[in-house]
Amino acid sequence: MKAGKTGRAGRWEVSRRMALGVREHVADSSRIDILRAAACCFMERGYTATSIDDVARRIGATKGRIYHHFPSKADLFAEVFRHGMDINFEALAPFQGMAGPALVRWRRMAKTHVLQMIDTKPFQRAVWIGVEMHLRGATTPEQRSVFNELIDYRDRYGAQFRDTLIQCRDEGVFRFENPSIAGQLMFMTLNSPIFWYSPRTGETRSDIEAIADQVVDYAQGGLCKEQGTQT
Amino acid sequence: MKAGKTGRAGRWEVSRRMALGVREHVADSSRIDILRAAACCFMERGYTATSIDDVARRIGATKGRIYHHFPSKADLFAEVFRHGMDINFEALAPFQGMAGPALVRWRRMAKTHVLQMIDTKPFQRAVWIGVEMHLRGATTPEQRSVFNELIDYRDRYGAQFRDTLIQCRDEGVFRFENPSIAGQLMFMTLNSPIFWYSPRTGETRSDIEAIADQVVDYAQGGLCKEQGTQT
Repeated sequence: MKAGKTGRAGRWEVSRRMALGVREHVADSSRIDILRAAACCFMERGYTATSIDDVARRIGATKGRIYHHFPSKADLFAEVFRHGMDINFEALAPFQGMAGPALVRWRRMAKTHVLQMIDTKPFQRAVWIGVEMHLRGATTPEQRSVFNELIDYRDRYGAQFRDTLIQCRDEGVFRFENPSIAGQLMFMTLNSPIFWYSPRTGETRSDIEAIADQVVDYAQGGLCKEQGTQT
Repeated sequence: MKAGKTGRAGRWEVSRRMALGVREHVADSSRIDILRAAACCFMERGYTATSIDDVARRIGATKGRIYHHFPSKADLFAEVFRHGMDINFEALAPFQGMAGPALVRWRRMAKTHVLQMIDTKPFQRAVWIGVEMHLRGATTPEQRSVFNELIDYRDRYGAQFRDTLIQCRDEGVFRFENPSIAGQLMFMTLNSPIFWYSPRTGETRSDIEAIADQVVDYAQGGLCKEQGTQT
């Protein structure tokens, strides 16, 4: 598994662990290992086909150890979703209230988001699965209130981008008719590595940065495009 | 359900039916009704959670009527996928070998594709579900050979776009580093209405055309963007 070995998720975790005592550290590390294994299982099999057994087998643990941390598969899934969004908020925090042209802030935010999708792909795929379940009403009545809260959490994350989009339009660098469609198209682009990215042998950090740049350039081009200029 | 009531899918079907005798017409119409109902069920519940019972209930038919046309859920799903791609190929046919600038052809193809995603969304969501199942190896050994064939069929459709992309780059209107990433980003954009589009009350065909234009403009802007020009 990729997430946590490199990149932001890893750094964030290290700093979180440093703030914990030894005892909490062990418990926390066990918890994060389970979350990572679960994210990979959900990504590979989907929600329905994943069992607590699959997650336990993946890290050579007993079902009991999983249940010690998470009372049910639904709880485990919700925590994977929440962790995925926690690390996204964390990554975006440095750009909150950043001064200067909105386009510069947008590019930094967009690239950070794309690198998150690449570095923590299993968590981000789980978020996607959760949103899909929510939209098609595939959640149980017990899950619904937790899901509503998670979806709100994700909407607040999206709002930070939408504010910057609107500022970019106000500053004359982005042009789009419908802000809601522009937001959808932008997120589809920036999220898309969760579907098509897979690491290559010998790939360096600068190769990954180049991929992220191509994705951000494409989104920027899409949002800057003068409409109806060519047919 | 939307598909077939309006738009290309509907027109295509009418012309197909005109070529059939009365008896075949009835059988064919029954078959297409089942495919439509199945596409909606798969879109709303996913593959695993959909049963033949759900499909039968949706059109007030018996399970026997469904089994008369499709021996199993797996077969029914494969036929929904195949039909989704059949109508996409059909819609793109007029632009095969079209002369003139590649960008003009690309725009026509792209807009046609976006309108297909909107007009026949349940079928196109089923195609997406099928690709996902294939990629994560969630198919059974029996399904595998049929899926391989369907994925090939979809790849041939994608190849028509990729050829046009490369031509646009050769003619100097598109600029991108990695053609494979450019293709992924383009398809994510053009396919995205299957996730976010839903019809509004009072929406006219020209409203839908305007949505499709915004999507195509965004993709064109993304593919035209001079890279690394702004940071």
